[in-house]
Amino acid sequence: MEHLYSERVKKVKASEIREILKLTQRPDIISFAGGLPAPELFPIEAMKVVAQKVLTDMGREALQYGTTEGYDPLRDKIAERMRKSNIPAQKEDILITSGSQQGLDFSGKIFLNPGDYVLCESPSYLGAVNAFKAYECEFKEIETDAEGMVLSHLERMIQSTPKVKFIYVIPDFQNPSGRTWSEERRRGVLELANQYNLIIIEDNPYGELRFDGAWIPPMKSFDTQGRVVYLGTFSKTFSPGIRIGWVMASPEVLNKYIMVKQGADLQSSSISQRELNTYIDLYDFDAHIDSIKEVYKKRRDLMLDTIRKEFPSSAEVDLPKGGLFAWVKLPSHVDTRAILVIAVENKVAFVPGGSFFPNGGQENFMRLNFSNMTEEKIVEGIKRLGKILKETI
Amino acid sequence: MEHLYSERVKKVKASEIREILKLTQRPDIISFAGGLPAPELFPIEAMKVVAQKVLTDMGREALQYGTTEGYDPLRDKIAERMRKSNIPAQKEDILITSGSQQGLDFSGKIFLNPGDYVLCESPSYLGAVNAFKAYECEFKEIETDAEGMVLSHLERMIQSTPKVKFIYVIPDFQNPSGRTWSEERRRGVLELANQYNLIIIEDNPYGELRFDGAWIPPMKSFDTQGRVVYLGTFSKTFSPGIRIGWVMASPEVLNKYIMVKQGADLQSSSISQRELNTYIDLYDFDAHIDSIKEVYKKRRDLMLDTIRKEFPSSAEVDLPKGGLFAWVKLPSHVDTRAILVIAVENKVAFVPGGSFFPNGGQENFMRLNFSNMTEEKIVEGIKRLGKILKETI
Repeated sequence: MEHLYSERVKKVKASEIREILKLTQRPDIISFAGGLPAPELFPIEAMKVVAQKVLTDMGREALQYGTTEGYDPLRDKIAERMRKSNIPAQKEDILITSGSQQGLDFSGKIFLNPGDYVLCESPSYLGAVNAFKAYECEFKEIETDAEGMVLSHLERMIQSTPKVKFIYVIPDFQNPSGRTWSEERRRGVLELANQYNLIIIEDNPYGELRFDGAWIPPMKSFDTQGRVVYLGTFSKTFSPGIRIGWVMASPEVLNKYIMVKQGADLQSSSISQRELNTYIDLYDFDAHIDSIKEVYKKRRDLMLDTIRKEFPSSAEVDLPKGGLFAWVKLPSHVDTRAILVIAVENKVAFVPGGSFFPNGGQENFMRLNFSNMTEEKIVEGIKRLGKILKETI
Repeated sequence: MEHLYSERVKKVKASEIREILKLTQRPDIISFAGGLPAPELFPIEAMKVVAQKVLTDMGREALQYGTTEGYDPLRDKIAERMRKSNIPAQKEDILITSGSQQGLDFSGKIFLNPGDYVLCESPSYLGAVNAFKAYECEFKEIETDAEGMVLSHLERMIQSTPKVKFIYVIPDFQNPSGRTWSEERRRGVLELANQYNLIIIEDNPYGELRFDGAWIPPMKSFDTQGRVVYLGTFSKTFSPGIRIGWVMASPEVLNKYIMVKQGADLQSSSISQRELNTYIDLYDFDAHIDSIKEVYKKRRDLMLDTIRKEFPSSAEVDLPKGGLFAWVKLPSHVDTRAILVIAVENKVAFVPGGSFFPNGGQENFMRLNFSNMTEEKIVEGIKRLGKILKETI
């Protein structure tokens, strides 16, 4: 029944990450592949307390339908957190979503016609690229250095590309590259969006996980024209399993997201929203985030030290200042998809970098997650990878 | 920035139900508007037990990312329940979704190109119509009598309509009409789908809530060609607030749903899936459904009796054999949107029937929900509506 499918769904392919994740769920594999938080840091005891409290105090409303926009006290708390990031948000500016992945999907649905272009970093987040592709768009990858998108290249691409709708960016501890944009580049890209009347989708799942260096305000904090759509999530700071994220946008734009959310799944979980809200009421959420950062910083340091020791000297890696990922560049002739096959035989896994370039063509990168594995496994896994690389490249 | 929006989002309108629901959340309103279950029947004490058990026994995986397809033990249980409905389902045939609304949205995404046609009952579920509209489709409403779609009209419309992709149906206790299809019509529509190579989307949120009469097998149970996509949900039998539904389809078709789910929100809640699975393990789910049916049957009887007593004799209403809704037909000159304004002034609400006809033009119906209000409020609310109708029509 091939002829019955829509044109858009013919463009959707199963993600490589997902197929690899399946493979690497075997407990004997040391996996640096997924973007999984450390499960031993999940606030399980606190969740027991808040689950009882929510069901006791407001069981009926926690199990009933709620509004599409989300649970007001949680929207309020998110707005308050955003104000601490210099973003003048109010409850009304927040839509609760089922993770920030849903915010990405809605962004494609709201802005993209077939043939429209998305401008993105090179490399960029695979899950966003796949979500947007379902709306039959094309991609232009913008040259990206250690400070962020290269402004001159971005402007040339805006000028030379018809039907650009938005610029998709992850300015903090990017997935996959680990890079963080300078304030100057954030302001520069926003100015170009203002000048050429474009939307910016600012995806910020990792921003609260900074290990070193000074905080840099999000692009949304510089937005005076309601041009930046900000996507946030509790997946990396609390739990991905509860599927709670949010969109913040100007009222006119947010209204589109709310209407699309209604058709997509009516609302996010009533009970999970209330549990999270109660958790933030009863516990010290910032202290919890600090404890995550402490563990991840150690794991990052250990992974980077071990890479420098064990990988061939031709491997290049920059220190990510936060987030979940290290990004390794190998000599241009190396195909990391082939390396992965050998790695999995040796019970260690990563994501080949080629998947993160929407238009393909760069196979000599590896994305390594450092949040999910223990220190012991990090050392052992990186040693195994180093041995494979030394033997094959 | 109007020019930046996609064509599809320009077609999405805020649902009337949603705007009304907001209005009728005021506690002093007797609302027959929403499709809300009775909150006093939610298994709150059982949820407390299962929430503790899940967090104690498998807290880490309950808060972690999981697979897109869903939690295997729950998929197994759903397949088992479907086999009891004569549908030969296995775990692999089930995708967990965030309510069946998400299954509707995905159906539009997977099958509909701009300009394609959906054939649906007349009237049909507003939330499905809005979800499909986002994919820029058109609708042909098929004549529907007390037995289901009129086969001769359906065949004429298939023959005369270009680019038909699927037939959308709710054969059990339909929303809004409360009608249940005969087995003959179910088989007849499926035969036409086979003959003309079309998909059937069988939406069955209410099927387990039958109060009288003999069970009739779902259309999916007669499907020999993998042509029926079946959408189920726990929203009406357990809790809508946890947002757990499912899609069952043939492997080729289900694979499209899985890929689309991945881009849309990665997965449904890890913890809610485990809680629901543990609930079904520990408690008698069928006995719980029986207790819901007992209460709703009484409310339905009371609402229908009171309508017959209090409404003008020109009002027509059939006895729904299950589900959540009664559907009242008034003389053709009556505009129930105008009646609603007066009703809300008198602190009683319903949904005007016009919203349920995708191509409009029939304003003389009311949808009345009987599951959510107590018996006392049902009597009082129907009396108020009867008085308004007698004074105005």
